[in-house]
Amino acid sequence: MKQYPKPLGRLINELSKLPGIGGKTAQRLAFHILSLEDREAEALAHAITEAKHTMKYCSVCGNLTDEDPCSICRDKNRRQDVICVVESPKDVMAMERIKEFDGLYHVLHGAISPMDGVGPEDINLKQLIVRLQNSEVKEIILATNPNIEGEATAMYIARLIKPSGIKVSRIANGIPVGGDLEYADEVTLLKAVEGRREL
Amino acid sequence: MKQYPKPLGRLINELSKLPGIGGKTAQRLAFHILSLEDREAEALAHAITEAKHTMKYCSVCGNLTDEDPCSICRDKNRRQDVICVVESPKDVMAMERIKEFDGLYHVLHGAISPMDGVGPEDINLKQLIVRLQNSEVKEIILATNPNIEGEATAMYIARLIKPSGIKVSRIANGIPVGGDLEYADEVTLLKAVEGRREL
Repeated sequence: MKQYPKPLGRLINELSKLPGIGGKTAQRLAFHILSLEDREAEALAHAITEAKHTMKYCSVCGNLTDEDPCSICRDKNRRQDVICVVESPKDVMAMERIKEFDGLYHVLHGAISPMDGVGPEDINLKQLIVRLQNSEVKEIILATNPNIEGEATAMYIARLIKPSGIKVSRIANGIPVGGDLEYADEVTLLKAVEGRREL
Repeated sequence: MKQYPKPLGRLINELSKLPGIGGKTAQRLAFHILSLEDREAEALAHAITEAKHTMKYCSVCGNLTDEDPCSICRDKNRRQDVICVVESPKDVMAMERIKEFDGLYHVLHGAISPMDGVGPEDINLKQLIVRLQNSEVKEIILATNPNIEGEATAMYIARLIKPSGIKVSRIANGIPVGGDLEYADEVTLLKAVEGRREL
């Protein structure tokens, strides 16, 4: 059997390293790229290089940005007294999509997970404590993921910050909007009942 | 709502132009690319540029190659008396994977489709006729896809070549190996019965 010509093989190989891209998909993408105009393929390659070179982490909040501090940290129209703590830059994007929260963020770049050897000192937590000193922050919203690691991280941060008198809150667990009680797992349903609100 | 930082937005935009890559997947891939080592991201960008610059179509068979003629056309150990006609370079790869066919190929780069305004002169067919003149080819295997366009193309080529006395064959339709009669569509099952072989 003939192998792929080398440049094509290399492209398929590089593409198949991407998450969720298997061999078949990588092949399909590679053939698509070869069918593009030179200009279009160049734009894709350049976007990769450019993003990789210019994107960095904000020195204040840890979010991905092309300018430091990031546009959110620099925006004086946002509330400066509330910080939403998330695990990753993707979570910042998700929060921004709800168009409701206009405070600041802090990105941990991970969650505490003793099983994986990730302790409090391995995530971007020290910087959060530094930010809280001499600041006007009145509330910390813990928006880490509702799984074991995220919960442990939220608990840890809550215990760390509460003594300082800053209000610490945790986003709610419950049935997703449009979801179905019938298909909800017991833990989620239990959390939904526990978190019930008076109407 | 804050937009993505520009370089990240551009990368997501370029990725989402790829087939089968929606907005969410493009975002996931972009964040993954940003999390790569510089070297790895560079390798991906370079593979795209390199493949795009060096890959071309073989002047003999029309297959994708980095050298002209392609390695299959140059391989004198392959049977020179049988040509398998396929629609795209991907189909050559598929045929090569069965590790059984060791003849030559001819890539049409499409199929006749009057509905889409694609006629016999719009596919790489003239070159096939040129190849057949003064050659030792004894059989043409028509391996176009078993859909309307592929069948029409196969019929057209068969009628074109048969008068020259060259044997023309068509790959079989039938139930895929591991498939289930119960779930086979009627046309496929009919073809399978029609194409039955004596044991």
